[in-house]
Amino acid sequence: MYRTHTCGELSPDQIKQEIKLSGWVQKSRDLGGMTFIDLRDRFGITQLVFNMEVNAVLCEDARKLNREDVISIEGEVAERSNKNPRIPTGEIEIIVKSIQLLSKSKLPPFTIEDQTDGGDDLRMKYRYLDIRRNPVKNNLLLRHKMSAASREYLNSQGFVEIETPCLIKSTPEGARDFVVPSRMHPGEFYALPQSPQTFKQLLMIAGMDKYYQLVRCFRDEDLRADRQPEFTQIDCEMSFVTMEDILRTFEGLTSHLFSQVLGKTDISFERISYADAMKYYGTDKPDTRFDMRFVDLNQIVKDKGFKVFDQAELVVGINAKGCGAYSRKELDQLTDFVRRPQVGASGLVHVKCNEDGSYKSSVDKFYDQKELKLWAETLDADAGDLLLILAGETGKIRFALSELRLELADRLGLKDKSVYKPLWVTQFPLLEWDENSMRFHAKHHPFTSPMEEDIPLLKSDPSKVRANAYDLVINGVEIGGGSIRIHNKELQKQLFKVLGFTDDEAQKQFGFLMNAFEYGAPPHGGIAFGFDRWCALFGGSDSIRDFIAFPKNNAGKDVMIESPSVIAKEQLDELGLVLK
Amino acid sequence: MYRTHTCGELSPDQIKQEIKLSGWVQKSRDLGGMTFIDLRDRFGITQLVFNMEVNAVLCEDARKLNREDVISIEGEVAERSNKNPRIPTGEIEIIVKSIQLLSKSKLPPFTIEDQTDGGDDLRMKYRYLDIRRNPVKNNLLLRHKMSAASREYLNSQGFVEIETPCLIKSTPEGARDFVVPSRMHPGEFYALPQSPQTFKQLLMIAGMDKYYQLVRCFRDEDLRADRQPEFTQIDCEMSFVTMEDILRTFEGLTSHLFSQVLGKTDISFERISYADAMKYYGTDKPDTRFDMRFVDLNQIVKDKGFKVFDQAELVVGINAKGCGAYSRKELDQLTDFVRRPQVGASGLVHVKCNEDGSYKSSVDKFYDQKELKLWAETLDADAGDLLLILAGETGKIRFALSELRLELADRLGLKDKSVYKPLWVTQFPLLEWDENSMRFHAKHHPFTSPMEEDIPLLKSDPSKVRANAYDLVINGVEIGGGSIRIHNKELQKQLFKVLGFTDDEAQKQFGFLMNAFEYGAPPHGGIAFGFDRWCALFGGSDSIRDFIAFPKNNAGKDVMIESPSVIAKEQLDELGLVLK
Repeated sequence: MYRTHTCGELSPDQIKQEIKLSGWVQKSRDLGGMTFIDLRDRFGITQLVFNMEVNAVLCEDARKLNREDVISIEGEVAERSNKNPRIPTGEIEIIVKSIQLLSKSKLPPFTIEDQTDGGDDLRMKYRYLDIRRNPVKNNLLLRHKMSAASREYLNSQGFVEIETPCLIKSTPEGARDFVVPSRMHPGEFYALPQSPQTFKQLLMIAGMDKYYQLVRCFRDEDLRADRQPEFTQIDCEMSFVTMEDILRTFEGLTSHLFSQVLGKTDISFERISYADAMKYYGTDKPDTRFDMRFVDLNQIVKDKGFKVFDQAELVVGINAKGCGAYSRKELDQLTDFVRRPQVGASGLVHVKCNEDGSYKSSVDKFYDQKELKLWAETLDADAGDLLLILAGETGKIRFALSELRLELADRLGLKDKSVYKPLWVTQFPLLEWDENSMRFHAKHHPFTSPMEEDIPLLKSDPSKVRANAYDLVINGVEIGGGSIRIHNKELQKQLFKVLGFTDDEAQKQFGFLMNAFEYGAPPHGGIAFGFDRWCALFGGSDSIRDFIAFPKNNAGKDVMIESPSVIAKEQLDELGLVLK
Repeated sequence: MYRTHTCGELSPDQIKQEIKLSGWVQKSRDLGGMTFIDLRDRFGITQLVFNMEVNAVLCEDARKLNREDVISIEGEVAERSNKNPRIPTGEIEIIVKSIQLLSKSKLPPFTIEDQTDGGDDLRMKYRYLDIRRNPVKNNLLLRHKMSAASREYLNSQGFVEIETPCLIKSTPEGARDFVVPSRMHPGEFYALPQSPQTFKQLLMIAGMDKYYQLVRCFRDEDLRADRQPEFTQIDCEMSFVTMEDILRTFEGLTSHLFSQVLGKTDISFERISYADAMKYYGTDKPDTRFDMRFVDLNQIVKDKGFKVFDQAELVVGINAKGCGAYSRKELDQLTDFVRRPQVGASGLVHVKCNEDGSYKSSVDKFYDQKELKLWAETLDADAGDLLLILAGETGKIRFALSELRLELADRLGLKDKSVYKPLWVTQFPLLEWDENSMRFHAKHHPFTSPMEEDIPLLKSDPSKVRANAYDLVINGVEIGGGSIRIHNKELQKQLFKVLGFTDDEAQKQFGFLMNAFEYGAPPHGGIAFGFDRWCALFGGSDSIRDFIAFPKNNAGKDVMIESPSVIAKEQLDELGLVLK
């Protein structure tokens, strides 16, 4: 037996008890007559004491221990004279009677402390050491808590967790698949799932009624900071439901996670249509912790001789509350910000609402005080506020103003990490025109049902068709999305046609699903949550990588195990493959 | 809203209530004036009633419905005159007031009944219809219950579920890997994990202390009935533990599953060493629901002129209790059984213990009554029993007698499906000599630690080294296995050497793990359970395929989605691959 207790559980209740602990040497302090060692395990830290006068040999042994050595000790719990209220075991210490060295440690390549001196690459290579640090360890513990609480809620609601296959079939639609060559069928390949979409729909047709799965998904995309080639979804599907049933159910899940994981019980849910989200926030994932809504100024700014506004499809502004005193330099920074290529505006018009009731604008030449006052009123601005206005092509300008809004929120400290504002965005467009391929793509995926009243538009004006689709956005982060699905073969065929599939292609790729629709498919719908991202949100981080035990870097590499790597020629031969 | 209740929950408590149900038409019975429909969903069946006199139009509509049509109905709950005590809703029926047809069904290719007329291939192709049948549906529900109960127990014991990557690195050791070509690094490959073995060990080195994961694993092996290319493990690892700690912990898990899933609270655990298992049962996974232990007869049968016995390395028998009256034909069947190539014995010696105290044997020529009496006593046989004896090379004969023992248990009805006998098999050999490659292989895997007292044998006689390894066997089925791991780089290097790895190969393939050992590795060990197989055992089936929602067939194909399949040339080009 290596321990009677963990390093996180002893308290004054155990004083005088003989105990045994095992763990890592976090640090040691040699104070001449006394040596103190902080012994660490996953559960906490316990202080060990060695006294030169009581047992010089043992004390010498203790002094020889290095950081990260693994030891087992026996001793007696004693009250600490110098109590440490910041840790749970801070009221006791262990008077050690024997030490057993279980495992020596070389000097770690970076310090195992909350604030480490290790760079990103080094910490990835030695991820097993990085995980010893509290911030990373706590992220993994948070993730565990999230998955346990998710299952707890879904189980309580009658959902059944069903595992769907990982070795499935490649479909050209959507992102790029990872493929797996088949040895038994040379020249053929499995694909790793981008999501279990078709399987969960088949499970509904199979009558399973309420399905969920915490499931690994794969996408062979070029990577960004918040993308990983493999990621985890909370994937759900329900039968005999309307959108309303689904939103209510997953408001339940979300509330449960907020209360179980963050201890927050006062979460409420807002809803907004996609059209309104674009109109008022310029994005389909608005951060609604703060207001700063867009106001359309087209009606009041045109025909005053200012060409930029006159020629613009959209002139739109926001009110940066309390920024009326911004300096020239600050205003220039904002202009530079919107002109960055990744934001893409060509300029920024501002109006300062001065404390004396007057207005100072960058377009004073074209607009008099009365007109500027009308703008200020339209934007609900008071003295001391700053109006920021962009003009141009609607899509581009909404995007740029959305970026500016977020930038201002950062500057104004409006992104309060302790505040959570969940928002359902609904009525997404069903289709999206792709200029490259000159055809429509499904905005969510090709199984999303159009809104009943918009079905006739599928023939006349497909771009106007709204979908029974919804996203859950929290603080500007898209946490999940889903839809009511098509459950009718004819409608599904019609949609594939709009998406440019021939009947033959549709049958070849999704025939199994469309055939299934002919054997009594219930109305159904579902949702999938990006679990890594949800963990990151709850953990207060922007990067999902911090919440994955063994993530890959931006080049898709696991630098710890050195993967991907070359394989033996015999393996290639068996698979019937040749490298180009 | 599609329903107020499910088809499994209405009872006399709801009589007179207006309700709405949705589901599939299981069957309809037209009794002239009345029509009855059984409406089915995942939760049960509810009887719907239509009365020609009350509403002829509606009744006609109901008569037009086919099996597996999906409908939604509104109506009133009424007491049933003709109660059905076999189903939970058997006391009520619904007087239907309106029907909405949600989805038509073609005639299914097989009947959706507990006993179906569909063959295996057809049911696999239409798996979504097969799952509608109770036996398959209940298997998936059992699996869900098993996974939920497993997590419940492990969470309560302080285990943390941590997801390990699916895209890892190929290692030639062990079974064949599935590989995944990397597009970003042409010519390089990821591999899908055969198990998260190295990652869970790294998590212990990372200090996570108690890890588990219900995890998909992959093996590119030629398939048998109980093998699938992808399968699920309950994978666990613990730090600062002895074998005893691990066995106790997982006896806890096993007991929890027995009580939560099967309602069995009287489960006890036996232990046996590998050597004894082989000696007494001829297998390392003995079915201990029944006795019929092997008895070594070498000491008493030799040197009586019977060459077969004299030349045999081992003469070993079992007592088939109560089979003394077996006919010539039955005995011939047993002889034929042991002679089958997959059993491999060359003949079978029998001794009938007659009711009159005499013995009748197939080797009467060589052994007299007194000698046969000694055999009977040695095998603890009474009048009416049958001794069955095999002779030959130890390994082969033990295997054959083990098969015969199981065959007899089948004939004698000793495999009681309501009885469960968990057994730990311990002290496995660390190594196994492979005649093909003329070198040692790891019996479990190369990270298994040798028993302390056998470490010196690693140099002198490796085949004798016993491992700190254990399997959990229930009713002759290997449910799981694990070991205490090596946590010391030098010992690990020594073992790789015995396994025929050069230092360079060991470093190249497992360097990351061996390096990790140098930074303070705690003593650790773990276990992995074959989750599919455990579900099959609890579900009373021999085939894991029945417990997987979308399994592959013996050719590794998913015949429903037609996978694996060819992929586009552009995909191959992007991956830098050419088909041979």
